[in-house]
Amino acid sequence: MEKLKEKIMKEGQVLSDDVLKVDTFLNHQLDPVLMSEIGKEFAKRFEGMGITKIVTIESSGIAPSVMAGLEMQVPVLFARKKKSLTLQDDLYTASVYSFTKQEKNQICIGRKFLNEQEKVLIIDDFLAKGQAALGLIELVKQSGAEIAGIGIVIEKEFQEGGEQLRKIGYRVESLARIKSLKDGMVTFKKEEEIIHEG
Amino acid sequence: MEKLKEKIMKEGQVLSDDVLKVDTFLNHQLDPVLMSEIGKEFAKRFEGMGITKIVTIESSGIAPSVMAGLEMQVPVLFARKKKSLTLQDDLYTASVYSFTKQEKNQICIGRKFLNEQEKVLIIDDFLAKGQAALGLIELVKQSGAEIAGIGIVIEKEFQEGGEQLRKIGYRVESLARIKSLKDGMVTFKKEEEIIHEG
Repeated sequence: MEKLKEKIMKEGQVLSDDVLKVDTFLNHQLDPVLMSEIGKEFAKRFEGMGITKIVTIESSGIAPSVMAGLEMQVPVLFARKKKSLTLQDDLYTASVYSFTKQEKNQICIGRKFLNEQEKVLIIDDFLAKGQAALGLIELVKQSGAEIAGIGIVIEKEFQEGGEQLRKIGYRVESLARIKSLKDGMVTFKKEEEIIHEG
Repeated sequence: MEKLKEKIMKEGQVLSDDVLKVDTFLNHQLDPVLMSEIGKEFAKRFEGMGITKIVTIESSGIAPSVMAGLEMQVPVLFARKKKSLTLQDDLYTASVYSFTKQEKNQICIGRKFLNEQEKVLIIDDFLAKGQAALGLIELVKQSGAEIAGIGIVIEKEFQEGGEQLRKIGYRVESLARIKSLKDGMVTFKKEEEIIHEG
């Protein structure tokens, strides 16, 4: 998605060989127009697959997911990282380690929101080592729902979460695929490399 | 906002005299079409005020805010409840007690995103005792930005946060104002009571 890549080139800050900061438009400040275009792009890529629900995780997955949900006219369910007093029903739970935040979180979803009738699109802002995506997959699997695919805004391909998920057989659509953040530079995967892969 | 009130009547669960659960459309599962209409309603109510930025708080404030931001064509900034490795710049911070979650959180915003040039609309999903709103007000004040108003999806009026904010002089626009949750019933404030108040 060219517009997203341009935004990353213009506003993304490479903090190390592993960390790209995109807090001006994706995970602290949000660019709603770009979020809307991202939602439309996810809708296009997963069109005609009979998706009935989007599943994401708080907080940075919410904006792209709600825009995709608007375009696809399906509800969005966001997994919570902690139980709250108003979310005390039967839950599906999984454990997720965040390398960025260096902490382990329980993530959970209310059982009543997912069942074997649903066809789910998982969406998240980043895909790095795949921890969050694997946690969401586990939650969806517990419910018996089908996973139609995984939509990612920015994939850091060199951290191999995407490779792992594609090997298992999931369709992963990433709107920007980053090959490397070495030497303070963002290098995207070329379109021909992505086509070749498919 | 009639459509929101109907949704609350249809899907909201009164858990106690204080707690209304709306996890089917607002704070666990999201109804993107309703969120979009909520965004448009906020845009209408705060039209012509020269708002340059929306400030909200993760997680449930994000969906209504990003929809309002899309309609108003302004960025959305969501306060975080904890510092992460990728958010380590100079921060504005405030302390917020959550009665629902029974815990105190530091909330923070990167300094570079707010300054005295900005005119801010604060948006949140719920207004009860006003703790989150007061925390957000404090963050915005630290930056020197002007607060144009406060947009709330559901106000629990009997918990008096709204009264307090209006007394200080803030314009608070709540799309559904609940007078009482007694006896397991949702009672909204009547339109004529709201007009009389103005």
